[in-house]
Amino acid sequence: MYKVDLNSDLGESFGVYRIGMDAEILRFVTSANIACGFHAGDPLIMEETVRAAKEAGTAVGAHPGFPGPAGFGRRNMACTPQEVKAYVKYQLGALDAFVRAEGLTLQHCKPHGALYNMAAADRALADAVAEAIADVDSRIILLGLANSKMIEAGREAGLRTASEVFADRAYQADGSLVSRKLPGAVIHDTEEAIARTVRMVKEGVVTAVTGETVPITADSVCVHGDNPSALAFVKSIRDCLEAEGIALAPLAEIV
Amino acid sequence: MYKVDLNSDLGESFGVYRIGMDAEILRFVTSANIACGFHAGDPLIMEETVRAAKEAGTAVGAHPGFPGPAGFGRRNMACTPQEVKAYVKYQLGALDAFVRAEGLTLQHCKPHGALYNMAAADRALADAVAEAIADVDSRIILLGLANSKMIEAGREAGLRTASEVFADRAYQADGSLVSRKLPGAVIHDTEEAIARTVRMVKEGVVTAVTGETVPITADSVCVHGDNPSALAFVKSIRDCLEAEGIALAPLAEIV
Amino acid sequence: MYKVDLNSDLGESFGVYRIGMDAEILRFVTSANIACGFHAGDPLIMEETVRAAKEAGTAVGAHPGFPGPAGFGRRNMACTPQEVKAYVKYQLGALDAFVRAEGLTLQHCKPHGALYNMAAADRALADAVAEAIADVDSRIILLGLANSKMIEAGREAGLRTASEVFADRAYQADGSLVSRKLPGAVIHDTEEAIARTVRMVKEGVVTAVTGETVPITADSVCVHGDNPSALAFVKSIRDCLEAEGIALAPLAEIV
Amino acid sequence: MYKVDLNSDLGESFGVYRIGMDAEILRFVTSANIACGFHAGDPLIMEETVRAAKEAGTAVGAHPGFPGPAGFGRRNMACTPQEVKAYVKYQLGALDAFVRAEGLTLQHCKPHGALYNMAAADRALADAVAEAIADVDSRIILLGLANSKMIEAGREAGLRTASEVFADRAYQADGSLVSRKLPGAVIHDTEEAIARTVRMVKEGVVTAVTGETVPITADSVCVHGDNPSALAFVKSIRDCLEAEGIALAPLAEIV
Repeated sequence: MYKVDLNSDLGESFGVYRIGMDAEILRFVTSANIACGFHAGDPLIMEETVRAAKEAGTAVGAHPGFPGPAGFGRRNMACTPQEVKAYVKYQLGALDAFVRAEGLTLQHCKPHGALYNMAAADRALADAVAEAIADVDSRIILLGLANSKMIEAGREAGLRTASEVFADRAYQADGSLVSRKLPGAVIHDTEEAIARTVRMVKEGVVTAVTGETVPITADSVCVHGDNPSALAFVKSIRDCLEAEGIALAPLAEIV
Repeated sequence: MYKVDLNSDLGESFGVYRIGMDAEILRFVTSANIACGFHAGDPLIMEETVRAAKEAGTAVGAHPGFPGPAGFGRRNMACTPQEVKAYVKYQLGALDAFVRAEGLTLQHCKPHGALYNMAAADRALADAVAEAIADVDSRIILLGLANSKMIEAGREAGLRTASEVFADRAYQADGSLVSRKLPGAVIHDTEEAIARTVRMVKEGVVTAVTGETVPITADSVCVHGDNPSALAFVKSIRDCLEAEGIALAPLAEIV
Repeated sequence: MYKVDLNSDLGESFGVYRIGMDAEILRFVTSANIACGFHAGDPLIMEETVRAAKEAGTAVGAHPGFPGPAGFGRRNMACTPQEVKAYVKYQLGALDAFVRAEGLTLQHCKPHGALYNMAAADRALADAVAEAIADVDSRIILLGLANSKMIEAGREAGLRTASEVFADRAYQADGSLVSRKLPGAVIHDTEEAIARTVRMVKEGVVTAVTGETVPITADSVCVHGDNPSALAFVKSIRDCLEAEGIALAPLAEIV
Repeated sequence: MYKVDLNSDLGESFGVYRIGMDAEILRFVTSANIACGFHAGDPLIMEETVRAAKEAGTAVGAHPGFPGPAGFGRRNMACTPQEVKAYVKYQLGALDAFVRAEGLTLQHCKPHGALYNMAAADRALADAVAEAIADVDSRIILLGLANSKMIEAGREAGLRTASEVFADRAYQADGSLVSRKLPGAVIHDTEEAIARTVRMVKEGVVTAVTGETVPITADSVCVHGDNPSALAFVKSIRDCLEAEGIALAPLAEIV
């Protein structure tokens, strides 16, 4: 029996500013990564998003990022591992307050944006993230890029780890993503993207941009809900996965 | 057997900016109110302060405030009760992450500055604070101004409440503080301040500025550690209380 | 020959967050109040908005507010007059950098939200705003609520002042606005709103909610561009004013 | 007749947080780099620091940095040149408001911390800084690291540029600084540091860490005022420079 999780970034509104089709996307994903007030979100938005996830029956995770809503967590920032560890603890705890208030349990933690990318490639930052989670509550699953330092760091810290894959991204022969700066990094054909995802889930491999068949673990697929066409893609991939006999389930039932 | 807690605000440094004689004051108080990154403090300072409190054997509480380090939480801010509730939850959770990471338990929550003063006088804000605590973890003690709306709200929310008194402040006949804007609000004589505190603890009364004997509960005395003379006062009051047979104990052993 | 200015708040986007139909509204107003990065806006948005105003031929003004994009400048905040004065200077200067970079001149300054409302009623805050403008550049026009302390303060500081009226708001017999918390504060009938505006411009009077005819100066009318129906209203009022022989002109040609 | 400027970073306090011995250092330097509220400083501190500089007769410059007082502008941050340009314009304008309010003229602009270091090595960022200055007011002098991209960019943008040298830092054969991460980067001997500075000013050369004699322009020497020993060094270097017949003068009299 094949299973996979669909995760999406949610709760990225801020004050009067609203973005994301959270109510819609929540109906289609099995895990929600909720912004924690550093790169996006604020206490009211976090409370509202945790409640919406609860109502939709979607598992809740923390989505910590670099500080500063002006940068939306997308800028690389030269923080020390010690700073990153403290930032992740802080954000995990902050979101967990809303999770506990709703009688839920924090399922996972997935770093956001530049922190995600930097920790995927830098073991010291990956360790900082993993140790932060382990220190706060070692039952929280670390959701990180498949084949990255984050997965290694999570295992070494004694955490359950979940490997994330991207339906629409090309991979290199070493299992890492092709940089968005390079041609061919993004797969624009929806059918191809979905077929690749099915193969990653069922066979545990992906074809690299250079032709090799590369092993990859696909515990969760990242999807977006910021516009109607993204939402349409989520519905498509969901239907196709189910048609292929792949059950959708939250991370906690997979890893 | 008489008992009282001594509490102080700690962890109010921020980035490269250092204030407070935290290491020194921690040796003399029984409960530490630790800033949570809204009005002061940051994740690294919070981590460092929780560890220092642990090492000193001082009980740890959250000290949530209004957002914005530029205002240091001292400016009244027209936040709605719903916003205040979400802000307190957020800050409680954030600090609790560091507390859990050190294997400790969050003992109490004392609002800071303008939030403390506003919630002392406004029942809707007091309820917001109390409900935030109850929602996150109803074992957390609410430390608020003696005879204020915060104590009422805490009781109604089913929380353990602790009443805070000020050694060097004058009280009105209704048990509230004389405003700092009025003459006679501050008691400058150290011996008188300490004698009043002893009486509040032993007899449960204080003499109002207008002469009446007013009932007051003194579970905890607020002291400061921002300068050497404040520190000297803490040592004096500690010695005098003990000489009077009043044991110093953290809030959890008192209420 | 009758003349009036139409002003609107612009540049209120922030980082990835976009609000307001700035490009559309700029074609219909004669003066743009541009957020200065405290309550909304950021340096890139300010630059882009000043350029868009230049292209549309709309006069540019600063729209300073209380700090904190999370509150959007709508929360009353207990800042001292000295703080308000420094905050207004800072924001005026910051916007003026972009204005100078485009070879333009800063026409006016209109405080935002809670600062606008507080300074309209509190002379010390009104003086702080007026003095900040006078200190930076006394040729900048102060745009404030008609019949308010801001207009008084501006005159006393030696500034050119412009009185702002609201088409869709009820007035009291003393010339001040009926609070939004009271019934009848907002005039929902578009034709009535426009007719009242025409009368304010041509006759310099408005009928108070209690029936009296009240003198009012209408140098500028505040309009909004945050949604399609607001935009439709702007077009209507513009057409009606012109049909009534009232020319639309930026503040600098009126006061 | 030899001349050199002594510059120091000032106005780095923030809200209740005070750092730097600004009042003392202002008496010894000829140019003050004043923080603009992004990495440090706030509107009240900026106003106070500009006034103190005016009183001391010290020339005033802007000291723009990356946003976020928590990082104090010391973290490399992956901002685009377009963002850097807008950030510098914003901060220049904000400080200039206080400068104009005091009847002064903004003499120079020196980027802070990570922005200084990144723009010294990256021509696109250097151009962004230089163009921001040129767009706001081309009479403002760009103070940047001697032999760096900032000086090149300033010249190309048509600005007056001033080259900054460090008394206590070792230089490489190409005229750039030896990284602080390498041994020998800092010259701890005060006499040697001062002798090197005298030689840089009089002869226009410095001995590289690898022995070569390297050309260097020394328009300004960076000094610090954050602690008593730093202050003592400033007095020493000032006395020695004057004893060597080198006059101290603000940048505007040098470049």
